[in-house]
Amino acid sequence: MRLIENAVGRLIPEEIEGRKLRPFMGAHADQGGGRKAAPPIPAASKYGNKLLKSLDDAIDACDIRDGMTISFHHHLRDGDYVVNMVMERLAARGLRDLVLAPSALFPCHEPLVGYIEKGVIDHIEGSMNGPVGRACSLGKMKHVCVLRSHGGRYRAIQDGDLHIDVAFIAAPCADPHGNANGVYGKSACGPLGFALADSLYADKVVVITDNLVSFPCYPWSIQGGNVDYVVTVDSIGDPSRIVSGTTQITRSPTRLLIAKYAAQLVYESGIMHEEGFSFQAGAGGISLAFIQFLAEYMEREGIVASFARGGSTQYLVDMLRKGLVRYILDGQSFDLAGVESLRDDPRHIETNPFVSYNYHSKGCFASMVKVAVLGATEVDLDFNVNVNTHSDGWLLHGIGGFTDAADAQITIITAPLVRSRLPIIVDRVTTVTAPGEMIDVVVTERGIAINPRRQDLLDRLKHSKLPIVPIEKLYKMALEITGPPEKPTFADRIVALIEFRDGTVIDVVRQLLPKEY
Amino acid sequence: MRLIENAVGRLIPEEIEGRKLRPFMGAHADQGGGRKAAPPIPAASKYGNKLLKSLDDAIDACDIRDGMTISFHHHLRDGDYVVNMVMERLAARGLRDLVLAPSALFPCHEPLVGYIEKGVIDHIEGSMNGPVGRACSLGKMKHVCVLRSHGGRYRAIQDGDLHIDVAFIAAPCADPHGNANGVYGKSACGPLGFALADSLYADKVVVITDNLVSFPCYPWSIQGGNVDYVVTVDSIGDPSRIVSGTTQITRSPTRLLIAKYAAQLVYESGIMHEEGFSFQAGAGGISLAFIQFLAEYMEREGIVASFARGGSTQYLVDMLRKGLVRYILDGQSFDLAGVESLRDDPRHIETNPFVSYNYHSKGCFASMVKVAVLGATEVDLDFNVNVNTHSDGWLLHGIGGFTDAADAQITIITAPLVRSRLPIIVDRVTTVTAPGEMIDVVVTERGIAINPRRQDLLDRLKHSKLPIVPIEKLYKMALEITGPPEKPTFADRIVALIEFRDGTVIDVVRQLLPKEY
Repeated sequence: MRLIENAVGRLIPEEIEGRKLRPFMGAHADQGGGRKAAPPIPAASKYGNKLLKSLDDAIDACDIRDGMTISFHHHLRDGDYVVNMVMERLAARGLRDLVLAPSALFPCHEPLVGYIEKGVIDHIEGSMNGPVGRACSLGKMKHVCVLRSHGGRYRAIQDGDLHIDVAFIAAPCADPHGNANGVYGKSACGPLGFALADSLYADKVVVITDNLVSFPCYPWSIQGGNVDYVVTVDSIGDPSRIVSGTTQITRSPTRLLIAKYAAQLVYESGIMHEEGFSFQAGAGGISLAFIQFLAEYMEREGIVASFARGGSTQYLVDMLRKGLVRYILDGQSFDLAGVESLRDDPRHIETNPFVSYNYHSKGCFASMVKVAVLGATEVDLDFNVNVNTHSDGWLLHGIGGFTDAADAQITIITAPLVRSRLPIIVDRVTTVTAPGEMIDVVVTERGIAINPRRQDLLDRLKHSKLPIVPIEKLYKMALEITGPPEKPTFADRIVALIEFRDGTVIDVVRQLLPKEY
Repeated sequence: MRLIENAVGRLIPEEIEGRKLRPFMGAHADQGGGRKAAPPIPAASKYGNKLLKSLDDAIDACDIRDGMTISFHHHLRDGDYVVNMVMERLAARGLRDLVLAPSALFPCHEPLVGYIEKGVIDHIEGSMNGPVGRACSLGKMKHVCVLRSHGGRYRAIQDGDLHIDVAFIAAPCADPHGNANGVYGKSACGPLGFALADSLYADKVVVITDNLVSFPCYPWSIQGGNVDYVVTVDSIGDPSRIVSGTTQITRSPTRLLIAKYAAQLVYESGIMHEEGFSFQAGAGGISLAFIQFLAEYMEREGIVASFARGGSTQYLVDMLRKGLVRYILDGQSFDLAGVESLRDDPRHIETNPFVSYNYHSKGCFASMVKVAVLGATEVDLDFNVNVNTHSDGWLLHGIGGFTDAADAQITIITAPLVRSRLPIIVDRVTTVTAPGEMIDVVVTERGIAINPRRQDLLDRLKHSKLPIVPIEKLYKMALEITGPPEKPTFADRIVALIEFRDGTVIDVVRQLLPKEY
């Protein structure tokens, strides 16, 4: 296996299992080229009644065979029933070597591990989380997995790198034509954008709903003109786990301090006062606290953001209602307030990975965001970020929208200096998810490191009283607390590729030889 | 030139000017197949500032060369400035042999005739109306033109039959990213759906606006991720001619009678009382009167239509507000009330030719419409309809959405028996736009003909007092009024192809040898 060093110094095989790899060349080096996938041309006259009586009828109609690629979206999050429901039926038919292409998986999808072990599932492309990632780390997949960001997944499907044979789209609301949205019904989840690429490019598209309404189902986040079959089931998910009742702000003094520092930095940098200020933060405890602190600054200063990117939560919705943001551009809803606001407020706009994150487009929203606040499992001295593996070597997380959101004009990583007795600031990340060139600031409770590439930011903050220090100092502080961390032991076998949003490979994950398991 | 007889008995050349033709095989015979067009893969990093200072800068940036295909939409109708503005600049550069692919043209586009005569324009694909159609009839185009329905145009672009090099999209509202809609601004026109295919499949996409707003422009009928450049100009059109202040119902007693008959037929057939009743009518005088009469029946009977298809007008908006229709699914707005309702009422939904009309999709709305009321220039004894040429042989109209809308479950043609001393019911239409198999009813002021293929309708109406007669009788009545009409004289040369919505050729138009000109 010939290895090539990529732009972040990782060795990437030229080819693996017949798959030719392009090594990562830099965050904005890829220039596109080639042509998008060309889906088959259907004829409307073949699509009379799309309503089928059961999931089995849909599987029959789609003629699913061994080795096919089956896709799902993750808007139902840890409440999703559909992945397990479909896989159970496919396994019962004795199907084997299926490729799974979910936009993300959750703890509720643990049953997939059994299908991996039995050979029903060959490998996974798209994202891996928790138990399934653990199975991957242990080398249980037959072939190498591919992890992609939300934007990277759209790109891969659009570009034909990831061909989906059959997409199963869980829909909280759908009509017999296949128009579907996520804002109405007992299983309402907010947007359905993660399924857009699947609907546009998969050979067969099955909408599975527990809330069939008469035509027209509107909004039509998924358009019936792209849908082959519609199946109704009793329930597509557990509402209490699809969206939490309310998302919780952190109560940890350490994490509150991190959030406060991040908000103060945004304020003091002056970027908040610039025309067209906008921001993105997630739904983690620190992110929510950051949003709260930011809102206080904005209110005090009379700032109105041109937009905020979701995942939406009560906190973002409050800002919209108070007039602190003009629009929420929302890719997924994390709580009920987010879902209801998306449904009812015309300023709360559903987005999808094409408009927000697709690098192989004529521009997307990611690079228009002024400030993105993101979490990480590790950051290293080159500012490279890892969100996939932990320092102990386990692959436990998908990329989510990380690499896409990190294209913001200022990307801030918020993380405690130490987590579970392991340093977060390390000399060299276990896995590179995003290159240091995209990371501008790392905020910990003990100090803030600014990427030396951002002299402009350093200049703007030179009179700040924030504890701005070189990242090497954070590293030393962390080491002083934890002592030198034990490094995991890996086998040679590559079990997963970390694909950058442009389709190049930024790192590989090797099989873990766990100390105890 | 080898000719093949198609399914409506017209002789279609196997090939013309190197273009292989597929003869029309029947309204629902085409089964799709092959693959959609695969547009080039762009890279977001190349799209920083899309705002250009002038139209000339955009033309430079697009590198427009002789022979390229340039497209436009027609939502600005007879108020459009953009087609002439762009063509004037292209002509000034000495460009030649351009192919024009507008979704429709209007009398305001008469200056194009000069560019045709000078060789700036080689021929037109898409639609032709008025002066440009007349130029085509006279043989002024260098190569054969292609007329397509709105759905057929989407299909042709999607399938790669019509490759657009550069699309110029007039936008009443746009942001610097290229997101655009038609509902805000001094040139508001309603939907922008006719430009959707262009934005998705053209190599280069230029948004031209007179109302640049800050990001995000929403709704984004056109998505910035598909747009290369944004240009601002003083004015993209004349508001008074983009949408009329109010559309006018007919005052002609003859036409009112036709509308009344059509509404009565819908009522008496019982279809109005069926679950999921829906309808489509245009903005012509008879259509508007039909809507009024239909609304009276519906109100009296307590019927609520599941949806009405636009073109939207005050009359349709009134029905929505009164609760007589649940939704308006709107492809274009004909008056201010339509534009305002689309902008403000969430039940008034913008559509585009993909969702509504594209035969090469997994189903579209056209076939879900219960009753469509459409006009025609001629109907013949086989119920074939002509909407393109007049009996005197002149090509004066595009297809519009005719062939698509005619896929409704009951398609009703409303027309006076005689127009300008020419019979509308003829033995054989001058040009077949839509096959008789799609046409169910012809309503004139002197009698109503029902297609014998629709025995179900004849049965439903057997106790009706409506003047239902065989179409042959209508033909005789017309002839008695007009005497035998003089037939036009054509040259051999084929100047235009009438393409059916599936891409087959349903008829050809030959060069006219006019008696006096």
